[in-house]
Parts: sequence; structure tokens; C-alpha cells
Amino acid sequence: MLVTLTTDFGDGSSYVAAMKGALLSVNPEARIVDLTHRIPPQDLAAAGWFLSETLRWFPAGTIHVVVIDPGVGSDRSMLCIEWNRSIILVPDNGCWTPIVQPGDGPIRVRKLEDRKYWRQDVTATFHGRDILAPVAGHLSLGGSPADLGPTVNQWISLALPQPEMLGDSVVGQIVLVDHFGNLLTNIPASAIPCDGLVQVGDSPAICRVRTYSDSEPGNVVALIGSSGRLEIAVVNGSAARRLGQGVGAIVRVSRG
Amino acid sequence: MLVTLTTDFGDGSSYVAAMKGALLSVNPEARIVDLTHRIPPQDLAAAGWFLSETLRWFPAGTIHVVVIDPGVGSDRSMLCIEWNRSIILVPDNGCWTPIVQPGDGPIRVRKLEDRKYWRQDVTATFHGRDILAPVAGHLSLGGSPADLGPTVNQWISLALPQPEMLGDSVVGQIVLVDHFGNLLTNIPASAIPCDGLVQVGDSPAICRVRTYSDSEPGNVVALIGSSGRLEIAVVNGSAARRLGQGVGAIVRVSRG
Amino acid sequence: MLVTLTTDFGDGSSYVAAMKGALLSVNPEARIVDLTHRIPPQDLAAAGWFLSETLRWFPAGTIHVVVIDPGVGSDRSMLCIEWNRSIILVPDNGCWTPIVQPGDGPIRVRKLEDRKYWRQDVTATFHGRDILAPVAGHLSLGGSPADLGPTVNQWISLALPQPEMLGDSVVGQIVLVDHFGNLLTNIPASAIPCDGLVQVGDSPAICRVRTYSDSEPGNVVALIGSSGRLEIAVVNGSAARRLGQGVGAIVRVSRG
Repeated sequence: MLVTLTTDFGDGSSYVAAMKGALLSVNPEARIVDLTHRIPPQDLAAAGWFLSETLRWFPAGTIHVVVIDPGVGSDRSMLCIEWNRSIILVPDNGCWTPIVQPGDGPIRVRKLEDRKYWRQDVTATFHGRDILAPVAGHLSLGGSPADLGPTVNQWISLALPQPEMLGDSVVGQIVLVDHFGNLLTNIPASAIPCDGLVQVGDSPAICRVRTYSDSEPGNVVALIGSSGRLEIAVVNGSAARRLGQGVGAIVRVSRG
Repeated sequence: MLVTLTTDFGDGSSYVAAMKGALLSVNPEARIVDLTHRIPPQDLAAAGWFLSETLRWFPAGTIHVVVIDPGVGSDRSMLCIEWNRSIILVPDNGCWTPIVQPGDGPIRVRKLEDRKYWRQDVTATFHGRDILAPVAGHLSLGGSPADLGPTVNQWISLALPQPEMLGDSVVGQIVLVDHFGNLLTNIPASAIPCDGLVQVGDSPAICRVRTYSDSEPGNVVALIGSSGRLEIAVVNGSAARRLGQGVGAIVRVSRG
Repeated sequence: MLVTLTTDFGDGSSYVAAMKGALLSVNPEARIVDLTHRIPPQDLAAAGWFLSETLRWFPAGTIHVVVIDPGVGSDRSMLCIEWNRSIILVPDNGCWTPIVQPGDGPIRVRKLEDRKYWRQDVTATFHGRDILAPVAGHLSLGGSPADLGPTVNQWISLALPQPEMLGDSVVGQIVLVDHFGNLLTNIPASAIPCDGLVQVGDSPAICRVRTYSDSEPGNVVALIGSSGRLEIAVVNGSAARRLGQGVGAIVRVSRG
């Protein structure tokens, strides 16, 4: 059974290693897939974007463990979410809600309550290892979400910033910067007129292309990225460095 | 069979990739779990702390391969350690000895001698790939530690710095800084009086809490971390940056 | 079935996570091994060196997916290469050709053409996820390379820089710097006279040793590294920092 891990613990963290051990101690056959341990510390919005880019690629039955947990040790709940025949285990902080899209099946949310599936000594600072990892182990052995606790109807939702119409223009923002320095926006392809002029901050209009190799190395280009949203790139270079822009910068698409 | 890897080779190193290949060439079914490749180069003490935080979380039967090896190519031995029904393969440099705790079962240590389980051409600079990886492959196929070489009664031990009593105060030090900038000390919970005043270097006394969320974001707090030892943190921030302290800094707990 | 991943996407990239999901959606039993995601962006030569250091350590039957793809979305082909009873899936950019050595069996190269094994909606910017990952999934289920497309006789080759004889001297260069700061050259052991004097740039002659521990910590040494080529190191330190040299620097071995 596949179990993915997404955390803000950092690569090579002893916390990640301890979680893997705690999970494998319950089910030595669990097949762990690291998604990322590089969510910026406590950054729920970054986690929301990451999860919405990645979770839907995994097969039905996958168990996704997500530990970005600024509220560890407080009375915030821990949740088990059934979504598209997959399961998400996550503190109740909303970082998972952006994954749900129109057309997804109904979701069911449970609050983890039955301590039978937790580590016996739960520390105040590491519920990923002490609660989520053993619970994931139990589910990966075929355990049912119904074992874990009652369904709930309320949970924290995270609203990621959405683009807006201002007159003739669509105004969005940069929401992720990838390893190449590509600037990923929140503006979907469907919101962009064919002849729209793209600007980041008060940059000049940026040349529109279909893919990176449609322009020369070093040129700034705007294109629909692999997530179906507008992206600003420098061909074989870094748009982040070239334009000096990052997460939160305003991106405008105005009618040409 | 689970085989974990802990090295100082760096993330994405070709050395790690080559070790995985050498191991899987002996047993393509081996299930490899990366613990960390971020031990600072040749830092045996850092490895000792990392291993003592992580190995005991893994299930019985796990094979742990540890390659921090400043003495590669010298006449230092390579060891196979049977510990708590798990196995550790490691150069004889002591980095594993801090994992052994009172209450653990007896350990048995062997010196790797039978070259039948090694790569045929052993280089002078990469015994992780040429010796430990194929030996781990052999063990993961069900091979016995007794195949590998004779038991020995002497090996190098590593003494990690321990806290001391100075008058009424417990004086320890910071031994690890995690990805969040939390400062982890070597002072166990049991050594700390309830009303003890915590200082790092000559900082003011630091507020004691049960968990991060017991205080406001930005505050410096002292708490018992997930390893059962004193930890200094900044809520949703970095204590390392705020206090300008790192590994080796003195931490004092004095009676209030 | 083993599937390895080598990319320039960066550690913890959502692109790597999406590729894993796309692959596992085709074959949830595929066993994924991360080799590296740290190839410098679009650096085909670095990929060539990395692959030639690592792929031959893996067992027959392994499927290697390599995504360094500066030409994504252009009309460059995608290739399936049968090599030494393993398979490589890679854009046609030559980064794989340095792995082939004299004595390897014949290779067979196919161009991916049958879209049946691709994702239905292929984006213009992410063929790793949309083509290579599902194709790897198909092969890992036992699919035949012959399913994928016709054999071809032409492909792009990458010539890595080779050392040259200049008078009595062998002149090569630094081609990789590892995590320790060791400087790896392209000069094979066989090209180096026993009494050869080693210089990097215009450094003084560097002491020759068999392994790091043959000299004192802090000393600059030259030795035959684990890849069988000349390497410059500082014992328990960083030669890159000490000598201020990196990839491309000239290394000369002259008769003593």
C-alpha cells in the first residue's frame, strides 16, 4: 500500500526518518513515497498549492500523510479525509482543502479520536510521528477510516488567493516559484484572452509562447504551464532572478 | 527486507545512487529507505545524535547502513552490529555507539572479513559501495551475520557530550539545530527541575512551555522536545537565528 | 520492477511528485528509486557524468527515467534505449550517450511514437509526467519496448571533454565537484604515469596518495577516486574551497 509523505521538516530531517520508522513499525510492507519535505516552515498556502499540484496524480487507494503543523500540541484536531478513493491524514489547518475541485466525488472527514491506533506516549510536539504515522500504518494494513473516529461536518478551510477581473484585465499573483526560477501564477488558462498582454509587476508586456523552446535561450516568456495556469519563464534561465519577483507579486493580463 | 541509508554524501549524490545500485544488484527486492544524506561531512558526533534519534523507531529486522567514513581506505575495520534484533553496518568509528541505551538487549559486534560478500574490486575510497552495500544485500536475502566475519570485543566508542551538575545548575549544550532553527540540547527532561530557569549562553531566562502553541508566534520558548530533551524554540520562527546560537553553545538550567 | 529517476527538477519538486504519481497510477507496484534531482538546470554534460557514474551499478531489468529536457515541447524525439539488459527513457538530447562503454552489448534505440501509452492530454511543457512516466509504468508491467515505437539509427550524441596528451603531459579538466568539495577529473588512472606530477591550474605539484587517510587532515592530495579517475581532495576538507577551483579548471599530469 502506497503512503506518501509531505512535510515542512526539511530534507534529511531526523523527524522524517522517525516518522518512516514509526510507520514501518506498524506495517513493514508499507511503500513510502516522499513527495516533499521542503514546504517552507508553517506555510499552509505553499502546502495548499503543492498538494493541489500533486495528489491527484496518485492512484486510488493511496494514503497521503501531510505534516505542516504550526498548531502541534494545541487542541486542533487531526483529520482523516476520504477523497477520490484516496485518504489524507493531516492536522486540521486547511492546507488540504485547495485540492478539492468541482467534479470530485463527495468527501468524508473524520476526526482522529481512537487512541488505540496512536503511539502510546504521545509527545506534545510531534504528532506526525506519534499519531499520523501509526494511523497511516494501520490504514495501510487494510484498516478502515471508520476505526479512527467520528465523521465531522466542520473543519478549517484555506482560501488560496484567486485572480480577479479589474475592468478588462485579469489580475492574479505569483503563487509558487519552482527550482528553475519559473514564476507560477494562479491565473487559469481559461481566464486568459488569446491576445492578452501579460505583465509581472510593472514589467513590459511579456512575449506569449506555447512552450519554452518556442523562444531563444535568455528570453522572458509567458505560457500555460503544466498545471494549466499562466507561468512566466526565462528560456533555460531563471525568471525569478531576471525579473526580481517572487511569491505574491501581481500578474496582470490585459486585453491587447 | 528494509535497508536504511545514512550518509554524509549529500542529497542527490552519485555516491548514494551507486550504493543503491550495488545493493539492488545483489537483492533487487531490497526495500531502501533514505534516512539522511546530510550528516555534515565526517561529523561523527552529528551522526551519533541523528542515529540515536531515529534507529530505534524502525522495526526488528531492519538493516541500517551508515557511511560516515573519514578513515576510508585505512586499516580501520568495518563492523556488523546486532542490536535490538536489528543490524547496523558501519565503519569502526564509533558513530553508532550512542544509540545503545540502558535496557537494550545485548549487542554482538562482528568484523567484516569474508570478502566473498564484497564487490570483487574494492576501491581505496568507497567502501560504502564496494563492501557495505553488497553485504547489506546479502543480509537482506536472509544471509546470517555469522557469514561475515568473527565477533570482536573491541571497537571504537564515541562519547557524546553529557550535561553536568555545577552547583545547583545543570549545564549542557546545544547538540543539534533542526530545519526550523530549533535548538536541541543534550539535557534530558529528568534532569530539569520544574521551576528551573533556562538560559542559552548569557540570554535572559527563557519562558518554559509544554508545546510551541502555548505561546505567541515570535516568542522564545523552552520545552521538552520530541526526543525527551530540552529544546529552545521560537514559535513559528527560528531560535538559531534569533539567538544567534548553534551547536556547542552552553545551555544552563538553574534552580529558580 | 525497479524504476530510477534522474532529473534537474530540484529536491522536493512538485514535478517529481507528479511524475511519481503518474507512474504509480499505471503500475502501483513499481518500485521507484530516486537517483538525483540535482542535475544543474538543463546541464546535459553534468547529467552525462552523473549517469555514467551510476547507471551501470543497477541490476539488469532496471528502467531508468532521465528528464533533463531543455527542448521540451519542441519536435525533439523521446527515446527508449535498450542497453546492457536495462532500459533508459530520455529525451533525445544526448545526455545518456556517455554511459556506453567499450565492451557493452549492442544498444537498440527506439523513438516513442505510440500515444496509447502516453497520458491522454500531453502538455507542451512536461513530457516527463505526460509521456515518460506512463511509458515507464507500462514497461514496468512487463510491456515490451517494441510497443513504444520504431527503432531509429540516428540520435543526438554528447561528447564529454576528454583528456589530451600535450608533449609529455596529460591535460584534462575537472568535470564534477562532489558534496565534500572533492574535484573529480576526466583523467583515467591508465593515463597517469606513476611518477606524474599533478597540478590544478597553476597550483604547486599535489602529493599523490592511495586514499584520503594516507595523509593528514587538511592536506591537498591527488588520488584515483572511486570512479577510476584522478581526483583532487583535501583530507577531511574541501579541495574546491581550498584551491578555489571548479568544473572546467585545467588539470595537468606531467612526467616527474
